[in-house]
Amino acid sequence: MDAQTRRKTLRLLSNGVYVLTSRSEDRYGAATVTWVSQASFKPPLIMAAVRTDSNVFKCLAESRSAVLHIVGDRQQEIARRFFFPTHAVCGTINGEAFMEGRTAAPVLPNLPAYIECQVERIVDTDGDHAVVILRVVEAECRDQVRPLTMADTPWVYGG
Amino acid sequence: MDAQTRRKTLRLLSNGVYVLTSRSEDRYGAATVTWVSQASFKPPLIMAAVRTDSNVFKCLAESRSAVLHIVGDRQQEIARRFFFPTHAVCGTINGEAFMEGRTAAPVLPNLPAYIECQVERIVDTDGDHAVVILRVVEAECRDQVRPLTMADTPWVYGG
Repeated sequence: MDAQTRRKTLRLLSNGVYVLTSRSEDRYGAATVTWVSQASFKPPLIMAAVRTDSNVFKCLAESRSAVLHIVGDRQQEIARRFFFPTHAVCGTINGEAFMEGRTAAPVLPNLPAYIECQVERIVDTDGDHAVVILRVVEAECRDQVRPLTMADTPWVYGG
Repeated sequence: MDAQTRRKTLRLLSNGVYVLTSRSEDRYGAATVTWVSQASFKPPLIMAAVRTDSNVFKCLAESRSAVLHIVGDRQQEIARRFFFPTHAVCGTINGEAFMEGRTAAPVLPNLPAYIECQVERIVDTDGDHAVVILRVVEAECRDQVRPLTMADTPWVYGG
């Protein structure tokens, strides 16, 4: 298999841009993620491929909860903040205010929609990401959200 | 949890439009799918949530191979053909020509890019779709592909 063709073809998969947060006791994890999709209607499940060396993965594996935030089409700069290691201080994570949600995981109120989840299952794939199956327990959504997609940004994650 | 809000929020997840094919001996399966994402760089893995009552699921579970096709932005009508039960006859599936690929699964040459895969693992989630982890074994891509996304179409699949 030609590596360049494989990379080019895999980059044709279409994805959104999300911020995934979690907390385990006093440690926080938050990261911009894109390998996410719904995985079932009944019960409502989401699947997310999450880097196993990330803070957010460690937190959700311990606490069994996470929040997936939709990023709006004009909020690329907020997503960029979560490319960096998690730094929680004074009610903010990487400079973004957060609040308590229904689970242990923090909610970022500046993002226009979010899905609170319990971790249903973590599938170790022998790859560089684990497949996390999340069960939706709560959702919130403001009107007039146009979600940011990877294709709208200068970023590439795939290949 | 309010069901309407949950549905509205889950529909903010961004997805592409793909045709997934498989074959088990003389039975074929092909379906338009959207709940798909990459799941690892090394090894290159894809995750796809596939309805467990579909022909394509039965075929890939048996043969352990599948092909994920990218649909181009002007090929909505081809994707629509695979909303219907699989009907393979005279070298066509649901009216689309197919050819042999590297695995048992058929390749649709009218679609501009495709990824041939072996089934790495099938995760039974207790939902209405199984999460299928696919390992990329071959990929092909024409130049100048603009992939069709669900947001480009009048269709909704999520919520």
